[in-house]
Parts: sequence; structure tokens; C-alpha cells
Amino acid sequence: MKKVINIEEKLNKFNDHWSPKIIADFNNHDIKLVKLKGEFVLHKHDETDEVFIVLEGVLKIKFKDKIQIINKGEMIVIPRGENHKPFCDKECKILIIEKKNTINTGNNFNDLTSPNDIWI
Amino acid sequence: MKKVINIEEKLNKFNDHWSPKIIADFNNHDIKLVKLKGEFVLHKHDETDEVFIVLEGVLKIKFKDKIQIINKGEMIVIPRGENHKPFCDKECKILIIEKKNTINTGNNFNDLTSPNDIWI
Repeated sequence: MKKVINIEEKLNKFNDHWSPKIIADFNNHDIKLVKLKGEFVLHKHDETDEVFIVLEGVLKIKFKDKIQIINKGEMIVIPRGENHKPFCDKECKILIIEKKNTINTGNNFNDLTSPNDIWI
Repeated sequence: MKKVINIEEKLNKFNDHWSPKIIADFNNHDIKLVKLKGEFVLHKHDETDEVFIVLEGVLKIKFKDKIQIINKGEMIVIPRGENHKPFCDKECKILIIEKKNTINTGNNFNDLTSPNDIWI
């Protein structure tokens, strides 16, 4: 690839929520940006760990045993197979790293399931 | 893992240059932080693509065919097998994503080769 990618410019290219866009790939993984607002669905990914880096806002994730709060400049790794439900009060902007072809809603197909191959 | 990691706090834990520290791992990859200043050695990694996200400063990378300049908030993916020589005039702070056990100097062992398993 070897081109320079400006993350802020990529964030400005879309406004929809819960629909990750790919900005780069490496080693059969995608790097995606997503904007979140409100509540997502409980789901898990059996095939991949999932890295969330919070670029703006405050992300909360409900697990079976606790709720984690991830502020701007913080990150978390969701282990594969672990149910999680992201939510946030105000819009937040997230960088995601996960295996290629990962579905945003994991095992829980529903109205929030979005395409997993949209590049911006 | 599932714990919250504050990137700035991790950056404050070390001051040496060219010696990446692991802050998280996922899918047999590490997420590392490194501080750079001056010139590194020309090297390549045959086993892994390498993602650089610039957190502070300006990173320059010399490839065979061009020099790329990566500013704060920008990223680049170095393809596996591609010779590259990072350098910067002032200190810059970088987040690296690459396969576990990657050696910082790749195929070019020398005085700048550092351990690849230091967690902070």
C-alpha cells in the first residue's frame, strides 16, 4: 500500500453510525473507522479479537461481567468469542482493527448488520 | 485482555528511542509504542506488513523509490519484504501494529536491534 492515510480526512467522508469503513489493510486484517451513537446489539466474533481505539468521544462496552468505559486516547481489545454490546450517549469515533471479512454484528444478524467491504 | 489501555500513560513510561514496547496484543499481533529520533537503519520484514500510526511529530520513511512524510494523525502500511529506513528530525511517537516476534531492525541485526517482547 505504502501511501499516507490521514485519519481525520477519512472520518470526514461519512456520517452514518454503526457502519465501519475500511481505510487500510495488512496481514489479512482491516483497519476501519466507525462513528457510533446510541446502543448497538449484543454480539460476539468467534473468529477474531477486535481492537477498538477511541479517537473522539466516550465509548462504553457492556460485557457479561462488567461495563468498560473507554475515553478518547484509550483502547481495548475484545477477545474473540466474548459477547459485547457497545453503546455511547454522544457520538464517538473509533478506529477498529480486526480480521478481514468480519461482520459488524458478529453472530447476531439484524437491521444493524452492514457491509464489511466498504473502503473510503 | 479486555482492560482499558491509556496510550498517553503508556508513552510516559519510557524515554528511549528506537525500542518498541508492547501495550496490547490480538490475533498473534502486537500493538507497540515507540519513540524515534534521528535515523534508523535500512531494513525489511519478510514475515509481516507493518502499520505505523503517528501520534506525535513527523515521521519520514525512505523507500527505494521515494520518501514518504507521515504527520501526526496519519498512518502508513509498510508492505512485507519492502526495504524502508525511518528517520525524523525531532522526536516522534509512533503506534506500530505488526506480527508477534517481529524484530525492530528486521533482516538487519545491529546495535539498534532491541528485544521484541518488552511489555509496558
